[in-house]
Amino acid sequence: MTSQIFPSDVQQSLDLVGIFVFALSGGLLAVRKNMDIFGICVLAEVTALGGGVMRDLVIGATPVAAFSNLGYFVTPLLAGLVVFFLHPEVERINRAVQTLDALGLGLFCVTGTAKAHDYGLGAVSSVALGMVTATGGGVMRDVLAGELPSLLRWDREIYAVPALVGAALVAVLTALGSLTAATGTAAALTAFILRMLALKYGWRAPRAWHRNGSRTSEE
Amino acid sequence: MTSQIFPSDVQQSLDLVGIFVFALSGGLLAVRKNMDIFGICVLAEVTALGGGVMRDLVIGATPVAAFSNLGYFVTPLLAGLVVFFLHPEVERINRAVQTLDALGLGLFCVTGTAKAHDYGLGAVSSVALGMVTATGGGVMRDVLAGELPSLLRWDREIYAVPALVGAALVAVLTALGSLTAATGTAAALTAFILRMLALKYGWRAPRAWHRNGSRTSEE
Amino acid sequence: MTSQIFPSDVQQSLDLVGIFVFALSGGLLAVRKNMDIFGICVLAEVTALGGGVMRDLVIGATPVAAFSNLGYFVTPLLAGLVVFFLHPEVERINRAVQTLDALGLGLFCVTGTAKAHDYGLGAVSSVALGMVTATGGGVMRDVLAGELPSLLRWDREIYAVPALVGAALVAVLTALGSLTAATGTAAALTAFILRMLALKYGWRAPRAWHRNGSRTSEE
Repeated sequence: MTSQIFPSDVQQSLDLVGIFVFALSGGLLAVRKNMDIFGICVLAEVTALGGGVMRDLVIGATPVAAFSNLGYFVTPLLAGLVVFFLHPEVERINRAVQTLDALGLGLFCVTGTAKAHDYGLGAVSSVALGMVTATGGGVMRDVLAGELPSLLRWDREIYAVPALVGAALVAVLTALGSLTAATGTAAALTAFILRMLALKYGWRAPRAWHRNGSRTSEE
Repeated sequence: MTSQIFPSDVQQSLDLVGIFVFALSGGLLAVRKNMDIFGICVLAEVTALGGGVMRDLVIGATPVAAFSNLGYFVTPLLAGLVVFFLHPEVERINRAVQTLDALGLGLFCVTGTAKAHDYGLGAVSSVALGMVTATGGGVMRDVLAGELPSLLRWDREIYAVPALVGAALVAVLTALGSLTAATGTAAALTAFILRMLALKYGWRAPRAWHRNGSRTSEE
Repeated sequence: MTSQIFPSDVQQSLDLVGIFVFALSGGLLAVRKNMDIFGICVLAEVTALGGGVMRDLVIGATPVAAFSNLGYFVTPLLAGLVVFFLHPEVERINRAVQTLDALGLGLFCVTGTAKAHDYGLGAVSSVALGMVTATGGGVMRDVLAGELPSLLRWDREIYAVPALVGAALVAVLTALGSLTAATGTAAALTAFILRMLALKYGWRAPRAWHRNGSRTSEE
C-alpha cells in the first residue's frame, strides 16, 4: 500500500484512512451475520487488507505490506472494536460509511495502480491491478460471509467503473510523466465522486440481453 | 502460462485459445446468474487466469504471467464481450464450449506441469501444480458465483482424472528426457480425449461407501 | 512448514501429524457433502496445506513448502484414502479427530509464527501469520464446501483464541531469546489445552451487543 507519488507520511495517512473505512464495512457485515468479536475482527482485517495483499502477491512484493507494516495490521482491529461496541451508532451513519468506503475505493485504485507501475507492470496490467486492489478486499469479505460479491451483483450501483476510471487516469498521468501528489489526488477524487454519483442516482450497468422467453430459469 | 516445450509463438497461441474458452465458460455462468457486463468480465477473467495465477504464485514466478502479458489479460475481456452480445448463440453451442473447455483443460495441465518443472519442482509436485493450473480457475469461478465447485461434485463427469493423466504423462516424459512439442501435444490430446469420453459416457467417480442407514443427513 | 526451533526431523514429524489430522477433517466434511473420492482428496489437501501456503506466499517463501516437500503433499492423499474407505469408523471417533485437530492447531500456530519471524517479520505480524497458518486451511475448506467458515461462527467454540495465545507465547519467547524445542512445545501444548477446554466447557465469544428491537433481520 505504498507508492512513491505522495510523500510517504501523507501516503501512509491516506492508506490508513482507506483501511479503516474498509474495515468498518467488513465489521458491519459480520455484525449483520451475527458473528462474534473474533469474526468481526477477522472480517475487518480481510476486507481492509485483502485487495492490497492480492496486489503485493501478484507483483512479488513480499513480505506483503499488510504484514510488514504494523499500522496496517492494527488499524482493522481498532475498526473491529469500534463496530463491536458502537455498531448501532455506526449503522445509523451508514451514509457516512458509504462515503468513506467510496473514498477508500478512490485511494486504493490510485495507489494500487501506481505501485504496480513501480514494479514494472505495463499500463493495462497496472490498471487491472489497481482495480484488484480497490475491490479485492470486498470480494473476499462477501465470499467469507457467504454472500454473492457486491462487485458481481447487477442490482447494486456500479463499483468497478469508478475504480477503472481512477486507475486509468493514473496510467495516463504516468505515461505523460505528470503523476504527482496533486494529480494523483485528483484521480482519487474523480473515482470517489463517480462512486458517490452512482450511489445518489442509482447508476447500474446493463445485463446481458435476453430474448423474450429465452431467460434462463436459474437466477 | 509459458514454458519451454513448445516454440514460444505456438505456445502463446495455444495458451490464448485455452484462456479464451475458459473465459467463455466463466462469462456464461455470469449470464445465468443474471450478472451485468462487469460481472461477466470479472468472472471471465477469474476463470481464465485463476489457475495460472495460483501456479505462478506457488512457484514464485512474479510478476505473474497473467498480469505481465497483455494478451493474457485482454483475451478474457473479448470473451466477456462475446458472451454479453451473443450469449443465446453461445449457449446454443454449449457442446462446442464443453469441447473447447476440455481442450483448455488438456493444454493447461500440460503447460502447468512443464512450467512447474522448469522452476525446479519435483515430479509429483509438478503434477499437482499442473492440476491446479487446469482446475483452479473453474473453482474460483464457482466460489465467486456461489456454487459448489464442479470439481468437487460427485454428480458431474470426472474432471480431475483427465488433468491428472495429462500432467502425469508430462512428468514421465520429462523424466525420460522425451518432452518435446510433439509428445507434449500428445499428452494434452490424451487429457482432452479422456475428458470428452467422460462427458460422452457419463463417467463418474465413486463416492464414499455408506452403510445402510449410516448416511448422514447433511447432503 | 519448516522453522528452526525444533531439530528438523522432529519438526517434520510434528508437521506431518498436523497435516494428517487437518486432512482428516477436510475429508470428513467432503463425505458429509456427498463428494466423490476426488472431492475428498482435494478437500483434504486444501484443509491440510491451505494455511501454510498462505503463510509462505505472504512471506515470499517460494516455491511454497507444500509443493516442494513431497511428504507434505502425499500425506493428505493418504488421509483422504483413509476417510474414503473407513469413514464410518473415522466419524465414530469424532472426538479423537477433534483432539488431533486441536493438536494440529497448536503445532501450526507455533511453527507458523516461528517461520514468519525467521523471514524477518515483526512480533505482531508474526503472531498474525501464525494464526493464519493455523486457521487458513479450515477457512478454505469451509468456503469450498459452501459453508460459513467455522472460524467466523458465533455458535462454535472459540478457535482463534487458543491459536492467538500459542502464537503470542512464541513471539514473547522469541523476544526473550528463549524459544527452544522445549518452550516451543510448551506453547503448542498451551494452545492445544485451551482448545480442548473450550470444547469441553463450550466456551464461546461474545457477539456484538444488540439493543432490544435493534437486532437486524438478516441472520
